Amino acid sequence: MNIILTGDRPTGRLHLGHYVGSLRRRVELQNSGMFDEIYIMIADAQALTDNAENPGKIRENVLEVALDNLSVGLDPEKTVLFIQSGVPALTELCFYYTNLVTVARLQRNPTVKTEIKMRGFESSIPVGFLNYPISQAADITAFDATIVPVGDDQLPMLEQCAEIVHKFNAVYGETLVMPKALLPETEAGMRLPGLDGAAKMSKSLGNCIYLSDPPEEVRTKVMSMFTDPNHLRVEDPGTVEGNAVFTYLDAFATADHFTRFLPAYENLDALKDHYRRGGLGDVKVKRFLINVLEDTLEPIRARRRYWESRLPEVIRYLEASTGTAGAKAEQTVRRVRAAMRINYFEGGSFLQEGLTRYTTKEK
Amino acid sequence: MNIILTGDRPTGRLHLGHYVGSLRRRVELQNSGMFDEIYIMIADAQALTDNAENPGKIRENVLEVALDNLSVGLDPEKTVLFIQSGVPALTELCFYYTNLVTVARLQRNPTVKTEIKMRGFESSIPVGFLNYPISQAADITAFDATIVPVGDDQLPMLEQCAEIVHKFNAVYGETLVMPKALLPETEAGMRLPGLDGAAKMSKSLGNCIYLSDPPEEVRTKVMSMFTDPNHLRVEDPGTVEGNAVFTYLDAFATADHFTRFLPAYENLDALKDHYRRGGLGDVKVKRFLINVLEDTLEPIRARRRYWESRLPEVIRYLEASTGTAGAKAEQTVRRVRAAMRINYFEGGSFLQEGLTRYTTKEK
Repeated sequence: MNIILTGDRPTGRLHLGHYVGSLRRRVELQNSGMFDEIYIMIADAQALTDNAENPGKIRENVLEVALDNLSVGLDPEKTVLFIQSGVPALTELCFYYTNLVTVARLQRNPTVKTEIKMRGFESSIPVGFLNYPISQAADITAFDATIVPVGDDQLPMLEQCAEIVHKFNAVYGETLVMPKALLPETEAGMRLPGLDGAAKMSKSLGNCIYLSDPPEEVRTKVMSMFTDPNHLRVEDPGTVEGNAVFTYLDAFATADHFTRFLPAYENLDALKDHYRRGGLGDVKVKRFLINVLEDTLEPIRARRRYWESRLPEVIRYLEASTGTAGAKAEQTVRRVRAAMRINYFEGGSFLQEGLTRYTTKEK
Repeated sequence: MNIILTGDRPTGRLHLGHYVGSLRRRVELQNSGMFDEIYIMIADAQALTDNAENPGKIRENVLEVALDNLSVGLDPEKTVLFIQSGVPALTELCFYYTNLVTVARLQRNPTVKTEIKMRGFESSIPVGFLNYPISQAADITAFDATIVPVGDDQLPMLEQCAEIVHKFNAVYGETLVMPKALLPETEAGMRLPGLDGAAKMSKSLGNCIYLSDPPEEVRTKVMSMFTDPNHLRVEDPGTVEGNAVFTYLDAFATADHFTRFLPAYENLDALKDHYRRGGLGDVKVKRFLINVLEDTLEPIRARRRYWESRLPEVIRYLEASTGTAGAKAEQTVRRVRAAMRINYFEGGSFLQEGLTRYTTKEK
């Protein structure tokens, strides 16, 4: 069986950074026909670990993120898009896995360290946030996931999961499925910089193009983008490395885009050469980028309009999928409980053991 | 509503220390008629936090502890004796409460500190073990417990629970019931020393009288008990303070016991006076103690035989009670989920909010 588990934290609308980093690939994998089951989790319970005091924000973004997934081409016939908190079996697995991991091990996790720093938690880390790699291991193993698409910054999370799987199977017998990370194929696929040239798009930096942004907003944002600060006049030679406009083109522009929108250039290399030589203005490149992005964004917007006008259907789908995910996770929990021998009321063995013990004792 | 939650870790058979420290009181409370609901939890999931690699031991002792409770007079008509792991709603509450407690706060918990030291965990504390005060808060609040009988060493656990209740209600609105500790009434009720005079009975020290010990074993154990090391000859004056035999008499001997077994003395004070003056041998006091203990233990053994011969009934009772406890905890989880606004599929408000958002946006 080939089973995928992946997902998003519903802390905000999804943007082009998510699209390049995971959503685009996710839909390709969905449509590849190579997977028996695909689970996409809207990680509201995880989002609450560092947004406990803001449940309204999470609730709103659960629907936002569901629509974002549907709008990039998630197919309700092929994919189980579910809400994490609707699958309580995940908390049960998490609870038992916490016995197999030491506090010191969690504190050494590089991803957790970075995120703690990012959030300014330092000594006041919520326990739930520190536990988050364990919770993620529960999410992955609950669905017997074999493949987990991740960015390389998330690799330590998958290592923690592998350790838990290994330890659980060693202590309680072969029960959990060992997952594999699926890393992005290309450099550009790994991370899209922000509009301001910052390492990544981030809601708090206000440097994102959202999948649901209308065309005017995309145009305004692209026009304000960071390029090469030394490329002041059109005739100046320019640099494409670290120039966000060109990084976006790396991620999105195809030969077909040149044919349709900028036939004077054969391909992106030709455009870059001209920019480097001088004589190519930022505005021209940005206009091309807008066309390129719109080529991706317009079908996304169209699908979003489609689903926004069918909200009751979206919510029925979410409810049904959450049920499907719950049933699958429940199967895993049943296996886990049997392995841990806490399935007292299944079969007659608990009684049988007692009978053996007490009748032997009395003789 | 007056609701009690208490319980035992199934890591071994229960002994006289448990009886004096909690079981005796528990049965008195049960029979007082003052409580609307009484939940006694066999804390197997909690026991697994520091016995993860020994699930067979926990499984065996679940039944042992159930029989111990029934044998001291737990009444299946009045009390819900349930198995913790059979109530998965507890792990769900625990998961959400971890967002409201910092790692630093857990590490400051005096009970956790002591227990970490006792178990020699130091830097390799399992996460589940560190989380144990949060898990206990889940157990207490799941049943809307108003009264939690505890020893004074467990007060920090109840303080942690109170903090969680307070924080949860402050963030999400009045949802959880604030519990109160019920401390033991008497000094002797607080802690019974070990047979060797050690501060408490503990399986690992091998200094316990178990509720299920046969009379010969109780006799042998009492005869080997620690008394006053300077009380060498009968005529020597003896000390009763720190003399475990007298501490046990403090906990168990009644006026009626003197009438029946040692009519030469009016009461315990008279016996102590004689011991202090000299002329009273340890053997005589120990024989009296054996009679006193047997007066408590023999009815316990009789009830144990009764239930051991009805194991299928015991297991049916455990299963039914665990179901009852599960249904109650599930009600609390439903309230918690509504307060946290993660009850997406209850009522139509999730859809309504979405409709408002998206139709407003389009205009």
